[in-house]
Amino acid sequence: MESLKALIRTVPDFPKAGIGFKDITTLIKNGDAFAAAIDEMANQFDPDRVDLIMGIEARGFIFASAMAYKWNKGFIPVRKPGKLPAQTKRLEYDLEYGTDALEIHKDAIQPGQRVLVIDDLLATGGTVAAACQLVEQLGGEVAGVGFLIELTFLNGRAKLEQYKLSSLIEFDSE
Amino acid sequence: MESLKALIRTVPDFPKAGIGFKDITTLIKNGDAFAAAIDEMANQFDPDRVDLIMGIEARGFIFASAMAYKWNKGFIPVRKPGKLPAQTKRLEYDLEYGTDALEIHKDAIQPGQRVLVIDDLLATGGTVAAACQLVEQLGGEVAGVGFLIELTFLNGRAKLEQYKLSSLIEFDSE
Repeated sequence: MESLKALIRTVPDFPKAGIGFKDITTLIKNGDAFAAAIDEMANQFDPDRVDLIMGIEARGFIFASAMAYKWNKGFIPVRKPGKLPAQTKRLEYDLEYGTDALEIHKDAIQPGQRVLVIDDLLATGGTVAAACQLVEQLGGEVAGVGFLIELTFLNGRAKLEQYKLSSLIEFDSE
Repeated sequence: MESLKALIRTVPDFPKAGIGFKDITTLIKNGDAFAAAIDEMANQFDPDRVDLIMGIEARGFIFASAMAYKWNKGFIPVRKPGKLPAQTKRLEYDLEYGTDALEIHKDAIQPGQRVLVIDDLLATGGTVAAACQLVEQLGGEVAGVGFLIELTFLNGRAKLEQYKLSSLIEFDSE
């Protein structure tokens, strides 16, 4: 998807020096490009093998909810701690320095439901691996993991080898 | 939309004592209900009079991006400070106690573009009024403001009188 890739803006030194941040806002403000991205992300998977679409806070919501609407599927959010109001299941996971955590509502998934996990960007894979573990801890099945962008030089795929994985746009360096 | 209203869960004492939090996750995990909510929210406005859909972080993203996809429009996020990577315009606004702030990319809107501002819930209206001001500060025009839920007892409409406003589901008490 070279034409979509050309719409991604790399912002130098965000959020810190040396990082080239992949900014999706320049793509998604273009209606045709946004719709093409959603259609192409969805086309990597079979809607007959998916019950729910999970979006990872916050940019993952943008892609997951449009896919859920396209396919007439339910949308479930996985969020930073303290944001979800009802009973939650929480998972802490390691970052390069320190830890982070995600939460999901305990009643978000019924046992056996097949959940497609969506985020905007695959970097080291820690966050999406944690989201997949939460799906499985609730008795769900991960139907696949999908991204608009993959930073291939960070090899996040290594943490997600057991899942069907799709990304539309690859960057092989900062 | 009584059938959609019945799918909203009120969680007592969240985020603090005395507040009955309107939890949308029980509605949006139902694929038919989610699609019906998006279609009905969109039907309140004329797509020929809208250029962009703005979603307010984070739950607003869920509804705004699905509407943008439905209408083949661009999506623009308005976010909490520090989240957007490129040059931003920032607006501080008053809360009951203290202040909060929103940011938008300076290049998100071209002068004259018509922006539909979407959030999940209208409470006191401070956040969405700030989002509308940011649209106007960038030279855009607010095409309307749309919500799934309105807490009518908080009278947030009073802050948004100059705009076309739509909500699908009303609650007249906690």
